[in-house]
Amino acid sequence: MKTINNFYLWGLLNFYYMAGNTFGQLFKLLSFGESHGRALGGVIDGCPAGLELDLDQIQTELNRRKPGQSAIVTQRKEPDTVEFYSGIFEGKTTGTPIGFAIHNTNQKSKDYSHIKDSYRPSHADYVYDKKYGFRDYRGGGRSSARETASRVVAGAIAKQFLGKIKINAFVSQVGDMKLEKKYQDLDFTKIESNPVRCPDMETAGKMEAYIKSIKKEGDTIGGVITCVIQNVPIGLGEPVFDKLHADLGKAMLSINAVKGFEYGSGFEGVKMKGSEHNDAYNNDGTTTTNRSGGIQGGISNGMDIYFNVAFKPVATVLQAYETINKEGEKVAAQGKGRHDPCVVPRAVPIVEAMAALVLADHTILARSNKI
Amino acid sequence: MKTINNFYLWGLLNFYYMAGNTFGQLFKLLSFGESHGRALGGVIDGCPAGLELDLDQIQTELNRRKPGQSAIVTQRKEPDTVEFYSGIFEGKTTGTPIGFAIHNTNQKSKDYSHIKDSYRPSHADYVYDKKYGFRDYRGGGRSSARETASRVVAGAIAKQFLGKIKINAFVSQVGDMKLEKKYQDLDFTKIESNPVRCPDMETAGKMEAYIKSIKKEGDTIGGVITCVIQNVPIGLGEPVFDKLHADLGKAMLSINAVKGFEYGSGFEGVKMKGSEHNDAYNNDGTTTTNRSGGIQGGISNGMDIYFNVAFKPVATVLQAYETINKEGEKVAAQGKGRHDPCVVPRAVPIVEAMAALVLADHTILARSNKI
Amino acid sequence: MKTINNFYLWGLLNFYYMAGNTFGQLFKLLSFGESHGRALGGVIDGCPAGLELDLDQIQTELNRRKPGQSAIVTQRKEPDTVEFYSGIFEGKTTGTPIGFAIHNTNQKSKDYSHIKDSYRPSHADYVYDKKYGFRDYRGGGRSSARETASRVVAGAIAKQFLGKIKINAFVSQVGDMKLEKKYQDLDFTKIESNPVRCPDMETAGKMEAYIKSIKKEGDTIGGVITCVIQNVPIGLGEPVFDKLHADLGKAMLSINAVKGFEYGSGFEGVKMKGSEHNDAYNNDGTTTTNRSGGIQGGISNGMDIYFNVAFKPVATVLQAYETINKEGEKVAAQGKGRHDPCVVPRAVPIVEAMAALVLADHTILARSNKI
Amino acid sequence: MKTINNFYLWGLLNFYYMAGNTFGQLFKLLSFGESHGRALGGVIDGCPAGLELDLDQIQTELNRRKPGQSAIVTQRKEPDTVEFYSGIFEGKTTGTPIGFAIHNTNQKSKDYSHIKDSYRPSHADYVYDKKYGFRDYRGGGRSSARETASRVVAGAIAKQFLGKIKINAFVSQVGDMKLEKKYQDLDFTKIESNPVRCPDMETAGKMEAYIKSIKKEGDTIGGVITCVIQNVPIGLGEPVFDKLHADLGKAMLSINAVKGFEYGSGFEGVKMKGSEHNDAYNNDGTTTTNRSGGIQGGISNGMDIYFNVAFKPVATVLQAYETINKEGEKVAAQGKGRHDPCVVPRAVPIVEAMAALVLADHTILARSNKI
Repeated sequence: MKTINNFYLWGLLNFYYMAGNTFGQLFKLLSFGESHGRALGGVIDGCPAGLELDLDQIQTELNRRKPGQSAIVTQRKEPDTVEFYSGIFEGKTTGTPIGFAIHNTNQKSKDYSHIKDSYRPSHADYVYDKKYGFRDYRGGGRSSARETASRVVAGAIAKQFLGKIKINAFVSQVGDMKLEKKYQDLDFTKIESNPVRCPDMETAGKMEAYIKSIKKEGDTIGGVITCVIQNVPIGLGEPVFDKLHADLGKAMLSINAVKGFEYGSGFEGVKMKGSEHNDAYNNDGTTTTNRSGGIQGGISNGMDIYFNVAFKPVATVLQAYETINKEGEKVAAQGKGRHDPCVVPRAVPIVEAMAALVLADHTILARSNKI
Repeated sequence: MKTINNFYLWGLLNFYYMAGNTFGQLFKLLSFGESHGRALGGVIDGCPAGLELDLDQIQTELNRRKPGQSAIVTQRKEPDTVEFYSGIFEGKTTGTPIGFAIHNTNQKSKDYSHIKDSYRPSHADYVYDKKYGFRDYRGGGRSSARETASRVVAGAIAKQFLGKIKINAFVSQVGDMKLEKKYQDLDFTKIESNPVRCPDMETAGKMEAYIKSIKKEGDTIGGVITCVIQNVPIGLGEPVFDKLHADLGKAMLSINAVKGFEYGSGFEGVKMKGSEHNDAYNNDGTTTTNRSGGIQGGISNGMDIYFNVAFKPVATVLQAYETINKEGEKVAAQGKGRHDPCVVPRAVPIVEAMAALVLADHTILARSNKI
Repeated sequence: MKTINNFYLWGLLNFYYMAGNTFGQLFKLLSFGESHGRALGGVIDGCPAGLELDLDQIQTELNRRKPGQSAIVTQRKEPDTVEFYSGIFEGKTTGTPIGFAIHNTNQKSKDYSHIKDSYRPSHADYVYDKKYGFRDYRGGGRSSARETASRVVAGAIAKQFLGKIKINAFVSQVGDMKLEKKYQDLDFTKIESNPVRCPDMETAGKMEAYIKSIKKEGDTIGGVITCVIQNVPIGLGEPVFDKLHADLGKAMLSINAVKGFEYGSGFEGVKMKGSEHNDAYNNDGTTTTNRSGGIQGGISNGMDIYFNVAFKPVATVLQAYETINKEGEKVAAQGKGRHDPCVVPRAVPIVEAMAALVLADHTILARSNKI
Repeated sequence: MKTINNFYLWGLLNFYYMAGNTFGQLFKLLSFGESHGRALGGVIDGCPAGLELDLDQIQTELNRRKPGQSAIVTQRKEPDTVEFYSGIFEGKTTGTPIGFAIHNTNQKSKDYSHIKDSYRPSHADYVYDKKYGFRDYRGGGRSSARETASRVVAGAIAKQFLGKIKINAFVSQVGDMKLEKKYQDLDFTKIESNPVRCPDMETAGKMEAYIKSIKKEGDTIGGVITCVIQNVPIGLGEPVFDKLHADLGKAMLSINAVKGFEYGSGFEGVKMKGSEHNDAYNNDGTTTTNRSGGIQGGISNGMDIYFNVAFKPVATVLQAYETINKEGEKVAAQGKGRHDPCVVPRAVPIVEAMAALVLADHTILARSNKI
């Protein structure tokens, strides 16, 4: 009798597919593309109609993420120009899916040939090989941070949808060098004025020098990005599983190299007593302090939302190291290629993009369930 | 002409519904129930057939979460007995949805009457009222942490499904009192031997005394729970949006009072150089260190997964405080009722439950896309 | 090295779970329960708050579906009383998930022992056994039409949500005995006045006599249910995959024993020319004819929606028959037990319930994407 | 106080977006593009890795759907060439999302100017205008059947994934001219040998002549497509809501102009008695008859699946007609442009594509829940 086991006859005894390519529930991004394929891109599904789009601004966001923009980031050259195929008519969104692509033009597969047969420490090489039984060594394929270009495009559209809601991310720590000022004392217009994307020029200068020294050693260093969201209406977020900060946390943790997320008082807040930690109300419903970080019970309360995102040091160091090959034998290796000594300056627009996607999704969600 | 605006004629001009009641993609929990309704419960949809269930163990997990279990938790009395309606036959799962309910028996609505007209600081009262235009003041309704009882039931089943994968959470910090030992040096069998749920008896004793002193003041204190997952197969997690740690992060951040999540080297890891942070391979693919925290590129690598979850101090303090009422006028108020001085001891089983739900979901997901 | 293949070590080498237990996108029903388990039930997730519920009316709908209500339906006795656990407070919905259960009280497992070892023709026995490697012979388990009781509860709530939108289904054909009148000429208040649920009393009488004669033979007969939805606002339905009639079709085809669905001009319409088939507009946007069946391009146009649903004859005949056993050997068998000679009278409330669920879902969906 | 009503400040007081652009649960197509935009396309998410793709075959399927292929279809010229951007490497699928686009090259917006101000009878013009408050009169925008080109691309890949499962659709009725032979007596290799796509050459000739005569009158005519799926393994389909035939029905009803769906004995089966209708088993589990249409209880039983799909006559007739304009005034109009006199010949590949998507999705689904 033929049964479901016939599947085995189809030559697809061992197959796999990669899940988890869509982000969002109502304002959604389905991302496609590999680092060394023909194009990356995506479809934004659920963006409301009638939104006047500033296409230059979208390209500007992509440029903030792209390689080669300064001396402290990877020197790869990728033009990263986005083309839109649908969902936009005479400069406005039509409410239908927005398809877009970013063609790959400068992929040097040979740059990766030296790592073809061994697993780079603290990279995804090993788990990919174990999970999928194969490995696209040419820059990580789908696991490459190049995929985040699609997120930046979608996030740039989400930002424009969000209108008065303003999202500003910046570098607040590189290694153990911390920006000590509170975000309220910073001038966000300074973020783009330096290659580190730290709005305090003095700290930015020190961070830049530090990253350069790290780069000289062929080493890398971690960092923290702080993100502040202002002019948020009250009421975004769902009370049980889809709390606003839970979705922000997932969004941030889905960015390559992220190791931690905290909002409001965060990990420091655990040391406080309730009587110290509680935010007292003003008559207008705002609070005198904001340890809550703009979210109560998973729902925005109208105060600024702020959170920190921890990035580990980039795993590719331009030094000699020992690792294993596919046979489990120890092999000597040498880091090569064009890589970032510190990922946080280029990750700033990615953090903003993911935050914008979460806010846009929760805006639509809130409107859909509160009418 | 009649159009869609006819909706307005139905007497439902301003309506809302609460979204986000389901967790998981393939192994799912849909949770229902309010803190002061007839019953809480849920449906577990996607649990494989043939799993022999230890029902006593499920009740044991519920008992770990329930109030009144020790002197340092709330003294409310709730028996929290779970009844199963479907999906289990002769002690085994049948692969069909598992419906269950926990009947509420001891809800004292009057305990909350004193807060009916004012907003408690750092509670969800205010945002609920603004979002939904109404407020169930009787213990928070759906936003109450009582909802997590349903999660503990589902998590207990997920744990049994996970078999050899072992999940142990414990209290690692209360206020600024930290457990200094590494998790590798702890005896997890000691977790349940003290009311704090800290596996180091000496630290546990200090923490217990500290929580009692906080309670005496009518105050509350925050804390950190560390969770360790062992015997994890390689290959759980998806490379792009649904990274294993991103879903763990969302799960943890969806628990009431959580302010932060970090895994592996976490926020400390940002201070390290890549050459220090990278985990070197042994011949068998394990690593000599585990700063990665058992996950690479969003996919489990077979090493222990470990993470920290930050909980803020409970907002209800048994002290006098000032707040505002619905009219925005300042009012004096006094915290009353039976509340936890520190939430982390009772949150330990909730952290484990959510971790189990994520692991079970990713196990099914991995099997469904890698065949 | 341990890999994902470790799954095989867990004693769950061959497992399955049953998918597809949820209906709807925003107004959702997750159904649970087996025909011979402790209880059936479900969770309605997405029902707006503030809806005043007539609980008696819900029970009335359940009674329309229940066995033993007349001489022409199965004589099984099931009280089918629904209990609500959450989401309703002081008679109104709260916008949170509505959990409910219908306890099973009269399951006679022995009634099915005679079919334990053989496959009933045109039943799901054989495919279940092949798909899942096991079979719950006690009345079909999850595949039993008893599951539709949960749908009737949810549909009854959806009906009340729909307010002025009126859904009336009735039996329009039994065997080759057709109700020849147009639905416009029928009095829907007569539907419940006879056990067949045909609003034309003369035809109903003939159908009833015919079903009784079929029953006497120990045989069964098929039928058609027509459903009419009136007072529909313009704008329900999505233009591409989720066309209103596509979702209605899926809803109807998901009911046990359904073999076909047609709306508006249906299969007869294919014979017409465009010039004959097109519905001309009146000045107010209504149409002089309604071959479109109230839906254009997948979107409701404000005219009555009407459709037909074809039900095959019940497979269980109380006659001797030949079949095969698990070993593939021919065996003689004899139909026994309490079964419906014709399923359509009891299926009328199920058709209405599924139609109500589709309309409610598309109402919320339309409101969520047109704001 | 600022609340969620701040949404109204953003200049998006009245917005909408179009939902329902994705088909499938695990093997999914997200379709994008308008009939007169820059490109149509889509993303296939969930296609397993390692599938060797015949790209010419995909283009061949597109050519079967494209306009201008014969004298009995619309004479519009669209090259409809598909470009793939991702998910394919060296001719094989990689398991990652497959992004693709079909650039529009021959859109004549002026062809539609004559209908700009009035509503065509039995078209979606009126409901679009009412639902969205605007209308893209240039060929229907997103509601145009041109969108089905994306479905044909995805379906062509699904077909190749399905391997030995063979899907053949053909025209079995035009107007009241029926193909009287059973499908078992037909030679499917003849389907493409005539422009009607009817495998019986004699009937095909008559149908072709009939369609030509209809075209000469400037009129249109409906038709029926029959689809047969062979070599189906046992076990595809879920027992409750996601029955295999329910998903097939939804897929077919989502195709433009479809009015009905029946499978197996269909509407004719209602006239039969159970004793006549039941399919008796052979020793090997096959059945002597196949009134079930290859599906029992929603699950494939290994026999051929067959079903009929009813298409209404195309609404655009090249004749004078009366209709209303936006102001509700009667206006005289005249049908113009290049349209199909009968849609079924070009719909054959669309029916096959949607059937392939359903089968592929249920194949992955069955593998994911039965392991």
